[in-house]
This record gives sequence, C-alpha cells and structure tokens, in this order.
Amino acid sequence: MEFKEFKEFSSDMVDYVGNYLENIRDRKVLSSVKPGYLRPLLPTEAPNDPENWKDVMSDVEKLIMPGVTHWHSPRFHAYFPTANSYPAIVADILSDSIACIGFSWISSPACTELEVVMMDWLAKMIGLPEIFLASAGLGGGGIIQGTASEATLVALLGAKARMLQIMKQADPTLADVDIVPKLVAYSSALSHSSVERAGLLGGVLLRALDTDSEHKLRGDTLRDAIAKDRADGLVPFFVVATLGTTSCCSFDRLDEIAEVGNAENIWVHVDAAYAGSSFVCPEYRHYMKGIELVDSFNFNPHKWLQVTFDCSAMWLRNPNYVINAFNVDPLYLKHELEGQMPDYRHWQIPLGRRFRSLKMWFVFRLIGVANLQKSIRKDINLALEFAKRLENDSKYELFNEVTMGLVCFRIKGSNELNEALLKEINERGKVYMVPSKVKGSFFLRMAICSRYTQIEDIDVTWNEVNEAGKTVLSKQ
Amino acid sequence: MEFKEFKEFSSDMVDYVGNYLENIRDRKVLSSVKPGYLRPLLPTEAPNDPENWKDVMSDVEKLIMPGVTHWHSPRFHAYFPTANSYPAIVADILSDSIACIGFSWISSPACTELEVVMMDWLAKMIGLPEIFLASAGLGGGGIIQGTASEATLVALLGAKARMLQIMKQADPTLADVDIVPKLVAYSSALSHSSVERAGLLGGVLLRALDTDSEHKLRGDTLRDAIAKDRADGLVPFFVVATLGTTSCCSFDRLDEIAEVGNAENIWVHVDAAYAGSSFVCPEYRHYMKGIELVDSFNFNPHKWLQVTFDCSAMWLRNPNYVINAFNVDPLYLKHELEGQMPDYRHWQIPLGRRFRSLKMWFVFRLIGVANLQKSIRKDINLALEFAKRLENDSKYELFNEVTMGLVCFRIKGSNELNEALLKEINERGKVYMVPSKVKGSFFLRMAICSRYTQIEDIDVTWNEVNEAGKTVLSKQ
Repeated sequence: MEFKEFKEFSSDMVDYVGNYLENIRDRKVLSSVKPGYLRPLLPTEAPNDPENWKDVMSDVEKLIMPGVTHWHSPRFHAYFPTANSYPAIVADILSDSIACIGFSWISSPACTELEVVMMDWLAKMIGLPEIFLASAGLGGGGIIQGTASEATLVALLGAKARMLQIMKQADPTLADVDIVPKLVAYSSALSHSSVERAGLLGGVLLRALDTDSEHKLRGDTLRDAIAKDRADGLVPFFVVATLGTTSCCSFDRLDEIAEVGNAENIWVHVDAAYAGSSFVCPEYRHYMKGIELVDSFNFNPHKWLQVTFDCSAMWLRNPNYVINAFNVDPLYLKHELEGQMPDYRHWQIPLGRRFRSLKMWFVFRLIGVANLQKSIRKDINLALEFAKRLENDSKYELFNEVTMGLVCFRIKGSNELNEALLKEINERGKVYMVPSKVKGSFFLRMAICSRYTQIEDIDVTWNEVNEAGKTVLSKQ
Repeated sequence: MEFKEFKEFSSDMVDYVGNYLENIRDRKVLSSVKPGYLRPLLPTEAPNDPENWKDVMSDVEKLIMPGVTHWHSPRFHAYFPTANSYPAIVADILSDSIACIGFSWISSPACTELEVVMMDWLAKMIGLPEIFLASAGLGGGGIIQGTASEATLVALLGAKARMLQIMKQADPTLADVDIVPKLVAYSSALSHSSVERAGLLGGVLLRALDTDSEHKLRGDTLRDAIAKDRADGLVPFFVVATLGTTSCCSFDRLDEIAEVGNAENIWVHVDAAYAGSSFVCPEYRHYMKGIELVDSFNFNPHKWLQVTFDCSAMWLRNPNYVINAFNVDPLYLKHELEGQMPDYRHWQIPLGRRFRSLKMWFVFRLIGVANLQKSIRKDINLALEFAKRLENDSKYELFNEVTMGLVCFRIKGSNELNEALLKEINERGKVYMVPSKVKGSFFLRMAICSRYTQIEDIDVTWNEVNEAGKTVLSKQ
C-alpha cells in the first residue's frame, strides 16, 4: 500500500469511526449474534493477491459490526468502563508509525523518557506522595503496564523476591524451596479475580479475607490472619488492598491495612484499577489515606481517564526488588548507558513494549486536567441520579452506598427474582448490565461506562429496569 | 475534542507519519540524546486547560523525534525487525474506536471470532498441521498473545499444570509442594532471555543445554539430560525448541527434540518468534520438521509479517491445560453461552485484550500472501548479498551460515577487535547494530529490519563496516 492510498484509506476510516462513535446511541448495545456466526461469512484462507481497501471497509460494517458489543454506547452498563477518546486514537497512529520497541533506554530513548515524565505528571494529578515520583529522586517511579492483572502479578513477584532475600539474609542455609511453600499473601474476598490468578501464577498461597458490613477489608482482620499464619509456621509476605472492588466498588481500609502491613514487614500493594482515576478530583482522595505507607500502587487510565487500552499505571516505591527478580541480561539487550534511566524490560513480564506514553501525553494536553475531573464528576453524578430513582421506588433497594460511577441494586425479593430481572433487562436489548454476588446476595451492577452517557440515558435505563421489574413481578 | 477537530488532527498526523516513514532514510538511525534529555524540555505537570493540537504536533517533531531510535530506517540493523505497515495502522484506528475488551466471547463476539478465524488463516499460511486449526475440530486452536515472552510463560504454566495433573493422578497422596521443586524444564543455551525468565516466573528449574557445532540443540543432548535428571529424582516436564535464535538465528533440531519430548512424555513448545514468519514461504518449512508432534507453537507476526506490535501468534494442541491452570471465574465475567467459542481470558496472563485480529485481517487482505512471501524473500536475499560482500573480503568471516535476514560476522581477530569494530560502526552514526556472544566468540549481528531496505542500503552498510574495519585495524 502506497502513501497516497494510506491517506485515502485512513481518511475514510476516520470518517467511519467518527460516525460510529457520534451515533453509537442508535446501535443495539449487546450483539445478538450466535456463537460461530462469523466463520461462514469469511473465506477459508487469506487471499494470495491484495484486495481493495474499499471492500475491507464495507466488510467492517457488514461482517464485524453485527458481532460487536458496543462498550461506548451510553446504554452499556456492564463490567467497568474502558476508555475511548480522539486524542488517544491519534496518538496511536503516531505510536504505530514510529513503532519502536522500548525495552531498554537505548532502543528508543524518547519512549522511556516520555513515560517517566508522564508517570510523574499522572502521579501529581492524582495526588500520590513524592516517594513515587521519579523526579523526587527517592528511588521510586512509575511504569505503564498492560493491565492491572500484570501489575498485581509484578507486585506479587517483587514481594516474593523481597521476602526470599530477607529470609535468606537472616538464615543463609535456607534455599527458595524451603521458603516458597510457606509464603502466604492476603487480599479481601472481594478483590478482583486477577489477584487470585496472580497467586496461582506466582505459585503462592493467597488468602481471601472476610470484609466488614460495608464490604471493606479491615486492618484487624489482616492482623489476625497474619498472626494465625505465623503461629502455623507460614511466612506472610504480601497484601493487596483494593480501592473500588469490581464486585461492588467497595474500598478496603487502606489506612489500617498499610499500617498493619508496615508493622508486619510485608509488601502492601494497592489495586485501584477502576476507582484510581477518580483521584484526579481531590474530594475522592480520602479513600487512599495511608498511601504514603504502601510499596506499590496501580490504576488503569485505560478505564476511566480517556487513555485507550492498554495503559495500566503502576508505581513502585523501590523498583529494585522487581528489577532483580526478573533480571536476565543477554549481550544483545545490553547498552553502555545502563543505570541512568530505567530499562523498563526489567519492570514487566513481557520484553517488548509499545510507545504508550504518547497516548497519555496527548490526552492530558488536549483534554486537560479540569475536563478529566469534570468527566469523572459527571459520571459519578449520573450514578447518583440513577440511585435516586431506585430509592424513590419501594420495589428496589441499593445493595451498598454509591461512591463512584457504579450502582449495585436489587429488586426486593429472592436472588432468583433478581436473576430473572437481569435476564429480562438484557433480553429487552436496550441496555446491558452484568451481575455480582456478595455474601450470598445476588445483585445487578449498573456502571456508567460511556463518555456519551447523559441524564436522558439514565432515564432510559431506569425505565428499562422498571418495565423489566414489572414483568418479572407479574410472573411471580 | 469534537469530531471535526479529530478529522483535522488525524489528517495532519497521517500526513506527518507518511512523510516520516517515506523519508526515514534521511534521519539519523540511532538517537544521540543523553539520558535525561526530555524532562527539562517538558512542563513539570499536566495542563489544567486543553491545549491546541497543533502545538502537540509541533512538539512531536521538536521534542520526541530527537529521542527516537528509528526502527524502520533501512539503516537499522539491530535486534530483530518489528513490523510496520499502513494497513495495520488503519486497523488500529478501528480497533481503538470500537475499543471493546474481548476477555470473553459475549464481551464482544466479533473480537473473539475474527481472532479464531485469523489464527486459522495464519496457520494455513505457514503450513501448520491440522491439529492446530480450530476449524479442524481436533481440540487445538490459536490465540494472539502480546509477546513471545508471554507465550513461552503460558506454555510453561500449561506444561506445569499438565505434569501436576499426571503426577497426582498416578499418586493421589502427592501435593503440589511435593512436585514443584522437582520440576525441570529444558531449552538450548541459545534460547531467548524470555525463556530463562519464564522459568524464573514459573518458579521451576530451567536447564540451558549445550548446542552442536552448528548451534543447534540436538535430541541426544535432551535425552541425556532427561535421563540424568530422572536418575536424580527430578521430574522433566517441558522443553522449548527455538527456530531462529536471537543470538545467531540457529535452528534447534525440532524433529529430534519433538521425538524425544513425545517419548519422554514432556510438553514440547516451539519458539519461532522471528523465523516463524518465513514459513509463509514453503522453501523454509523444512526447519519445522516434527511440528506435528509439538504441544504449542509461537511466532511473532509483529516482527516480520507486517502486523504492528503487539501480535504474537500462539497455537495450542490442547488448550485445556492452560485454561484449567488459569481458570478463576467470578460471576461478573460469566455468560450463558460459555463453551461454544473460546473465552480467551482463560488462555492468557492479562484479563483485558484489544481487538488485535483486525490488524491481521487488514494486513492479510490488503497485502496478500504473495506479497508477504516476496517481502520475506527480499529480506533474506539482502542478508545473503551482505554476506557475499563479507566473504569476498579476507578481513572478515561469517560466524555461521546465513539462513534468514540476519548476518552474524566478525572481523578476523580477537573479541576486543570486534568490540572495537562495533563501537566504531555505531559511533559513525550511519547504521546501527548490536552484538552477540556464543561459546566465547563475540560477533556482530546485521539484521535486515526495515521494509524500506534496498540493495543500495546494503552497499552503504557494507561501506560503513569496511571503513570502520580499516579504522580499528589501523589502531592496532
């Protein structure tokens, strides 16, 4: 494909995606295709000779779009949001064209250096303490990981390396095999599935601890679990505090957990994948009280801060544990200026990495902090508006307090009734939600996900819930 | 940012990146900035109010480009290639706009289904056996991983899960802790650093085995190592065969390794990260003799097949070991149609995933198989042309046979002389290479990396080597 054709093709694509996004409200939010719909519509193998890009464009609408679940529809209320913004899309055109692989500083200095500065910008935007700023020179710093799953795993592996080092220094006769089977990590029972997975991948025991009546993990619970495990000869090494659980957006008591973690000499990691973006607004930062005591912190700008996937921001107080745990250093990856700037390949699971900080740079400059704050406040306000409608109807109840852009609710009655309600809502096809279950109670999750969602959409969603509610009640 | 502004901005960016790529030969391939160059040039924090996109555009050239190492310059001969193509860039505009997260089938059916079909297309393009085709219904199938590092780790974790299952079935009194410390994996001493890292991450012993005089791992070496380890009470469970090592592009004897692996009942994984793309040309498929006996196979279309990073293609004969090893299944991620199509979240380390198969679809259709073959053959031919120039000059020698787009060479003399040669070449600043060292011998690697590289560029590179060679010889 020549430059001229690329210009025409990309211009056509930009028109297409602009029209797609600006009119996304008109599309059916949840795809209704059946599993296996696509294969019969496609050739069985790749063409030998090039096709015309116009044919590809028309196949996008004809073949792909019917199978797309529209995450950016204002009627999409499932999971958590994923970001989408024009500045980020344009940044990716640049990133895909420079197409450098930033595994070390020398492999493309700008790729590493912009990331270091953007992670400092972002740390300041959300009010992180100086220990996490590269510019503060205290040893801490940030990195873009692909996902929160990877950040949690990296933190766990760093914590594991740290504890192995401590134990072996205390008793040089010990080997890994003596220690690893005794390692134990902790999180709330409501922590994300990726935390359990990190435990599995890291080959260590992970305890899912009970939460209090507000679904928060408390310091005392952690302290008791650690004491019991120590008495049983186990070695506590790592705790994950979640700020904004996926299940119901509850916030663990970081202030208490961090204090216990420090006292017990275990690594404290914070998973704020979704809610972390809200900390651009000072009024939500009270949720991260205790942050100055933690070892690592992670949240996903690719969820709620308009930087498209993948961009999971992670800060480490002391990156050396992770760097040393992963350090494998063949000659072909070495360079003469090592040590002055990060070689990010030592901070992450993969070797290769894209120039992702361009997305942050474009979004922060072209949207600006004030608009990012405005957008967070708008989404939380829409959630509160939806909650108000529920509270004004005696048939419904909130599962817990609404703190962010997520409303967890039930129709008063059994779990089965609520399962029927969710099924009815999704089958009506106008809006899309997913459920959760906490301490035996099944409930519906209504997340504000799209930057196009307005108060009128909340009325539509409320109407859908209400009509579906009447239907399921009438069938009882 | 409004649609209208997005159109202007993206159109300007497309012009910019088109001009960047079409004239990339004129740029200095290796950035000459010093560590820390960027921070003083940027504000210390993000702006509160939005800036104009034109200011961002002008900063790209002014602030970013001086720090970019130009991987797509025809004078870039370091590492291995990374892909870049116009169809892939346009596909990413679409992917970034749909911006769905394809962790399960229901979360966006097209995202999963196009991937399943594209992995079948690609399997056929490189001549993989039917056991790896989803359409064959034999249980096998493919997935796009982010990087080869992740694919190797996933394979190792699948193999670990498989061996734990086998051992526990044979002796139900055994627990993980009895088995894991005895597990042992194998690769050639020349396997990629990510293989050693996968061993570290997976918490198992990895043995780097000696290669033969052609730098290939042989079946007998593996058989002997396994026998010795079994005699010592260890449990062999996994072997990685590399097709096209990063060090010197040697090919392990897959035919022998796969046979031994099967006879010994251990998982055989193939890492063909770079060289796998060459199998679109039938004349190179002899390197994967034995492929029908392996458990998993991986190569990176994002290296040498014009699909931009990240797109690492992995096939599994029986994905269930991986699926069961990772399976953590919270209610909010479940759906009613599970089991009919893959839920790829169970096949990978991260939870989230982009709509990456669009890049494959666009590239395969708009470039076509014949042009992809042509491009591979062109690159290998350019490497052979460079090798010819070396062979015609008695001052130089090839380190090993040239099989792909990589030439490993030395100036006759000591390692120190070769180190000086590399330093001189890179300091002259016209071309960029990295070294490797195998069995004590330091050599230079000249990789053909850019789709813009022509025979005239090879003459330039040869001239640079030759001039640098004269300089270092004159200093002796």
